[in-house]
Amino acid sequence: MKTIHEAAAALRAGRTTPVELVKQCLANIDRCEEKVKAWVFIDRAGALAEAHARADEIKRFQVRGPLHGIPIAIKDIFDVFDWPTAAGSKLWSQSIARQDCEVVRRLREAGAIFLGKTVTTAYASFDPPVTRNPWNLSHTPGGSSSGSAAALAVGMCLGAIGSQTGGSINRPASYCGVQGLKPTYGLVSCDGVVPLAPSMDHPGPMGRSVRDLAIMLQVMAGFDGSTIQKPVPDYTALLSEDAAPPCLGRVRGLFEDLAEPAMQGMMVDVCAILTSGGLRPPLAEVALPSGFGTVIADHRVIMAVEAAAYHRLRVQRHPEDFPPRIRSLIDEGLACPAWEYERCLKQQQRLRQQMVQCLEHFDALIMPATTSPAPPAETTGNPAFNSPWSFTGLPSLSLPTGHFADGLPLCVQLVGGWGREASLLKAALWCEKALGVQPLDAIVA
Amino acid sequence: MKTIHEAAAALRAGRTTPVELVKQCLANIDRCEEKVKAWVFIDRAGALAEAHARADEIKRFQVRGPLHGIPIAIKDIFDVFDWPTAAGSKLWSQSIARQDCEVVRRLREAGAIFLGKTVTTAYASFDPPVTRNPWNLSHTPGGSSSGSAAALAVGMCLGAIGSQTGGSINRPASYCGVQGLKPTYGLVSCDGVVPLAPSMDHPGPMGRSVRDLAIMLQVMAGFDGSTIQKPVPDYTALLSEDAAPPCLGRVRGLFEDLAEPAMQGMMVDVCAILTSGGLRPPLAEVALPSGFGTVIADHRVIMAVEAAAYHRLRVQRHPEDFPPRIRSLIDEGLACPAWEYERCLKQQQRLRQQMVQCLEHFDALIMPATTSPAPPAETTGNPAFNSPWSFTGLPSLSLPTGHFADGLPLCVQLVGGWGREASLLKAALWCEKALGVQPLDAIVA
Repeated sequence: MKTIHEAAAALRAGRTTPVELVKQCLANIDRCEEKVKAWVFIDRAGALAEAHARADEIKRFQVRGPLHGIPIAIKDIFDVFDWPTAAGSKLWSQSIARQDCEVVRRLREAGAIFLGKTVTTAYASFDPPVTRNPWNLSHTPGGSSSGSAAALAVGMCLGAIGSQTGGSINRPASYCGVQGLKPTYGLVSCDGVVPLAPSMDHPGPMGRSVRDLAIMLQVMAGFDGSTIQKPVPDYTALLSEDAAPPCLGRVRGLFEDLAEPAMQGMMVDVCAILTSGGLRPPLAEVALPSGFGTVIADHRVIMAVEAAAYHRLRVQRHPEDFPPRIRSLIDEGLACPAWEYERCLKQQQRLRQQMVQCLEHFDALIMPATTSPAPPAETTGNPAFNSPWSFTGLPSLSLPTGHFADGLPLCVQLVGGWGREASLLKAALWCEKALGVQPLDAIVA
Repeated sequence: MKTIHEAAAALRAGRTTPVELVKQCLANIDRCEEKVKAWVFIDRAGALAEAHARADEIKRFQVRGPLHGIPIAIKDIFDVFDWPTAAGSKLWSQSIARQDCEVVRRLREAGAIFLGKTVTTAYASFDPPVTRNPWNLSHTPGGSSSGSAAALAVGMCLGAIGSQTGGSINRPASYCGVQGLKPTYGLVSCDGVVPLAPSMDHPGPMGRSVRDLAIMLQVMAGFDGSTIQKPVPDYTALLSEDAAPPCLGRVRGLFEDLAEPAMQGMMVDVCAILTSGGLRPPLAEVALPSGFGTVIADHRVIMAVEAAAYHRLRVQRHPEDFPPRIRSLIDEGLACPAWEYERCLKQQQRLRQQMVQCLEHFDALIMPATTSPAPPAETTGNPAFNSPWSFTGLPSLSLPTGHFADGLPLCVQLVGGWGREASLLKAALWCEKALGVQPLDAIVA
């Protein structure tokens, strides 16, 4: 049982139980964790106890929804009641959360079972984590949601929660060959989540099918005082309709110039398959707004300044608790003049507006999800194809294609309009079907 | 230098420095802490560094207000950035706060210097703490703000932050012979504070003069989204005016029936002194509303139910982390039928309304602050004279009288009208002067 929607149907039909699902995940953990190192800790007893409780509810016909009894993983920057939130910090390794963060509260209420906390890079930044890519253990799983992506790729969980400020959902998901969704900025609450750069922090779901992303987003999204005040559509109901072919725009510029040949070849093949599958014309080339010329640099400024604002005092007191890449990010932020930060915030607003127009006639834009397949484990890879969407706040969904290079998965990315997750998910589901994508377990050697 | 207002004046006049004030407190800590055990931890280096920073600001004429450069103590249920918040729990002993709670944020902004965290009873409940009463080491300092009260009584700090749900500010302050103010419910934010019973949790200041309470409350009070939406008066300015004698009401009933002879005798003497000092007539006997007949029991129900609601899951998982009295409180709460809790919440509203009328013609009501002087250290003492004000949410201020029994201080309590801290503080200041109360250091033997 690899996907949430499949498991949820089997639970409803009595063909499996929450306990079996948890045991299946624990078996995969036993088989792979020693080499993959996806987890900060695993609460076997707690997860089994929850599974029994959820099973009893099912026997009483009290099914809370499609996440009822589903074992999931939580990135270790989200507060989970009675568990430490270390966020990759040694000094926070015993910092026990007194309450669930808003996202976890919602997932718990929906009946999800938490298996444990997954590895994040230190403070959700760029320093390479202990986690390895299950498709090739000498390569990176990407970051910062490293453990969530790697755990999914070998079935150690059925769904996972990640977060993205640069490329921290879409990049690790792609490197590990699973699905990831960075929602519209502000759709999902950051309350109780360790921040990296609050103007661009996006919690989001990671899973092994587009439907699974919709199921998780449905529960995670919603108003809590800090989020967008807009009713959340019924994503899952929309996906159950027969989907017409979407209208996609193909993005070049930045997104083709930086792509390695393997990614360019994959894009040609994927577009051919989608077109022959009946994609609604045109798969027109979309001209990106001029703001894209500096988007990577502008994104870096906001991330550096806001990380510096948050970590400034602790980095002074406990420099040893900050590995090199987050430290140099903070140093950059500390050295940045305020007018430069102000300019980038304005640019962020401007580019966000321009993208609304750019996406007006499309359900989504399509591009490679990453510049290359997962590189060796000395880095977490290049987030250049993801950070523009963290910057503009548009929803971005990464999708395996069934293509591989040297045994490493290659993924595409679909970017939707502001707050238009419903159209984005429908488009992604159509592509997933057209490409015949099925969840594949990496063979850990 | 024993009081904040005296130290603030000396700082302004250049007669002392924040560094000297911190060193004075640290010297008192060195002298007494081994026996008194008021602190969970002390950050000597951090406090001295802050003192130097505040001193530099003074040299540049950047004085933030009367708390600028004043060393204070924080009860260990308030989150202080980069320090653990243990709340008396062993499992939380390394739970480092990622940010200041609202009260600490305000105090820090006002220039206060945090010396460390003071001992609280486990989860701010009734289990005897390690802390001892500096006036007699075999007696209790009271609880739950045990360390804050004991530290003040020997000059280990100039001010302290406590909190009260039953009698946790006024009782320890009284047993240790210092001033304490439980403000009106909702005047001071509980955001980032470990709750005991949210409907009755009150953060408040403890100090060694009425003026000091006003100085601290001024900074602590204010709107943050969760508090009363009412402008905060300028308490300190009001206190600088020449105070007319207040109009006090004397409360009998409950508050005299339960008082031990030492307290009754003290009340007679104190009322005689105040009357001869020119108290505005009448020091009339005030009839308490009928709801007082069950107020202790009703208070206990709300406290038990809300403590159970908060601690329920952790007490199941970690019973060893809950000493006997908080456990039996939680057990009581778990066993309480919801309709009984609902009845008590209604009764709380009713009694609160009735007290508005009761206080209409008075600046404050006067009564003994506790049923007896500090009892032996096997309990934290009887909160019966304090919990009615935690229940109704009226502000209550406890005041040393200069009277002692067997070397232990005896205190009175003044209770003000809802949101009428200004009148209460003025009345208390007048009484403090009329009684000739001066801060006295306990001699730790």
